Amino acid sequence: MTHEAGIPLGIRFRLLSDTPQDSAAQVVSDVVVGDYRDLDTLRAFAQGCDVITFDHEHVPTEHLRALEADGVPVRPGPDALQHAQDKGVMRARLDAIGVPCPRHRIVSDPDDVAVFAAEGAAAQGGGDGFPVVLKTVRGGYDGKGVWVVRSVAEAAEPFRAGVPVLAEEKVDFVRELAANVVRSPHGQAVAYPVVESRQVDGVCDTVIAPAPGLDPELALRAEEMALGIAKELGVIGHLAVELFETRDGRILVNELAMRPHNSGHWTMDGAITSQFANHVRAVLDLPLGDPRPRAKWTVMSNVLGGDYPDMYSAYLHCMARDPQLKIHMYGKDVKPGRKVGHVNTYGDDLDDALERARHAADYLRGTITE
Amino acid sequence: MTHEAGIPLGIRFRLLSDTPQDSAAQVVSDVVVGDYRDLDTLRAFAQGCDVITFDHEHVPTEHLRALEADGVPVRPGPDALQHAQDKGVMRARLDAIGVPCPRHRIVSDPDDVAVFAAEGAAAQGGGDGFPVVLKTVRGGYDGKGVWVVRSVAEAAEPFRAGVPVLAEEKVDFVRELAANVVRSPHGQAVAYPVVESRQVDGVCDTVIAPAPGLDPELALRAEEMALGIAKELGVIGHLAVELFETRDGRILVNELAMRPHNSGHWTMDGAITSQFANHVRAVLDLPLGDPRPRAKWTVMSNVLGGDYPDMYSAYLHCMARDPQLKIHMYGKDVKPGRKVGHVNTYGDDLDDALERARHAADYLRGTITE
Repeated sequence: MTHEAGIPLGIRFRLLSDTPQDSAAQVVSDVVVGDYRDLDTLRAFAQGCDVITFDHEHVPTEHLRALEADGVPVRPGPDALQHAQDKGVMRARLDAIGVPCPRHRIVSDPDDVAVFAAEGAAAQGGGDGFPVVLKTVRGGYDGKGVWVVRSVAEAAEPFRAGVPVLAEEKVDFVRELAANVVRSPHGQAVAYPVVESRQVDGVCDTVIAPAPGLDPELALRAEEMALGIAKELGVIGHLAVELFETRDGRILVNELAMRPHNSGHWTMDGAITSQFANHVRAVLDLPLGDPRPRAKWTVMSNVLGGDYPDMYSAYLHCMARDPQLKIHMYGKDVKPGRKVGHVNTYGDDLDDALERARHAADYLRGTITE
Repeated sequence: MTHEAGIPLGIRFRLLSDTPQDSAAQVVSDVVVGDYRDLDTLRAFAQGCDVITFDHEHVPTEHLRALEADGVPVRPGPDALQHAQDKGVMRARLDAIGVPCPRHRIVSDPDDVAVFAAEGAAAQGGGDGFPVVLKTVRGGYDGKGVWVVRSVAEAAEPFRAGVPVLAEEKVDFVRELAANVVRSPHGQAVAYPVVESRQVDGVCDTVIAPAPGLDPELALRAEEMALGIAKELGVIGHLAVELFETRDGRILVNELAMRPHNSGHWTMDGAITSQFANHVRAVLDLPLGDPRPRAKWTVMSNVLGGDYPDMYSAYLHCMARDPQLKIHMYGKDVKPGRKVGHVNTYGDDLDDALERARHAADYLRGTITE
């Protein structure tokens, strides 16, 4: 999708891909297949690149520092990106700059979890302080590397991998929001409207732009918070700040992502400038495009893999039923539960847009056949 | 741009390209470099293609018939495409189905032109019947292969190539319009709003969607005419019908193009479904997307090559001045006068959209520097 956004500007991509079958490798013409964890591979790849950016945050921080030392522009750079790579680093930094987060602490074993829960019980003035959320500080996504434990007895599992673990309070939230911003090396920054992100089984299911019924003051605060984080952390490119809206009217930072993000996929059809176009512009230090929405409501629903490997035949029904539907498939092999695409709908009627997106996503997945 | 539109649907292209530097060859990953005039090349290329379509109409008709005989789906097929390849065939067919065209006749030499002019003088009840427009029936575009002659003495040139020549009256038009439609093998068809196309030196300069102040009845007649032509000629995919709006309130067909067309480039940012997306959908016999505009006004201005080979540096000014501007560059070498890209603007205020498109196109070309 970043390649798609680069085509109109004549931006040529060289792609480092795990396999020739990766989504991006199917559409980019200059593909190097190699391991992003190998510094020699990265160095050879970087030869002749004007600038390097990412569609995931798993390239080792130290390798990115080595590339920077070689003189390769890396955007976002490792100093910023480490906050999206390591939840411990992220939480410590957000604390330091005064950004509200769930109560948290790095824990070493189940005994530490017991102490953390006891502190929670004391703060709440009752209960046992459970459930507690445990997250490996690196490598988790879409619910992987995250456990919600209800007792010390349940707290053993997360420590088995030998990776540092972050304990967090289970926030009593009304809903999840996301504030998407883009920042360029010049320091120019734009904020997309704050969206509501609905999760199912820990995976983003639907995003509504803008978040319905959101207090305008809270929306402004979320945008300013995201812009502030981007500036303080020196983010270049797209930054997604996943937020909890609490029952008592606060917003707390859940996660950070420094790349075009699922919560911004609606912008492809719903904003004047998509997150992908603005990410490319930021990475190249070009002036940023207008982030405002083009429709009153835009809805994005993820298409998950279902039982049928062939989604193409579902196009017939979906396109015939809804000529305004925007389908974005990623060319991935269909595996049950895997994100293989998304659909966007937009219009003046939110219920209608939600229904159309829901129907199309379910039909493409094969959950419904009519 | 067709590749761009195919990516979200997971449509993979194999491209037959004259050179590895062609615009499309820069972004499509599966490229065969070869001569589209060579049947063996075409046959080898067609192996493994589900369907073949075009971004120009120069593949010889007889080769397309050979591919069809081999069982390769060619869309649009040669029976339709010949009307966009040969202006003589086109005029004869439009006459036969009752579509209004400028007065015309195939001419063999300047004496024929004299007779044609005399008939015009008689019809007009005076004058000498000149100027007369002479066009080679094949191979012309953007003013090439077209002559406006003011006397028999001037009429020698067009015959020198030994190609059949079509004589046409020089229509006293108010402006040029274009009706863009898309038709699928199922017979489903959609019509984009009729646009105004402004030419400079025989080359399309600016397109305004929808055509300002166009009589709704005339607009409807133009759409119906284009849909009728698509059906009668068996067009599959995009059909652009270039029209003259005459001083006395008629519409006459100027040219046909059976592929996404310059007069439809505005749809990339201005319509719910772009002409490229709908062309792909039609060629694959998928249900067509909604062709309605997303903005009150959309303006497309072509970017022509100027004196500066580097257009990238102009992005800084253009993007900073107008964060809503949509730039589409084709990756072509810059040669003076060559179409190397286009810009789209949209909004509620036509004058504003026109000024922004004009400024950006001129700045990218280097005609203005501020």
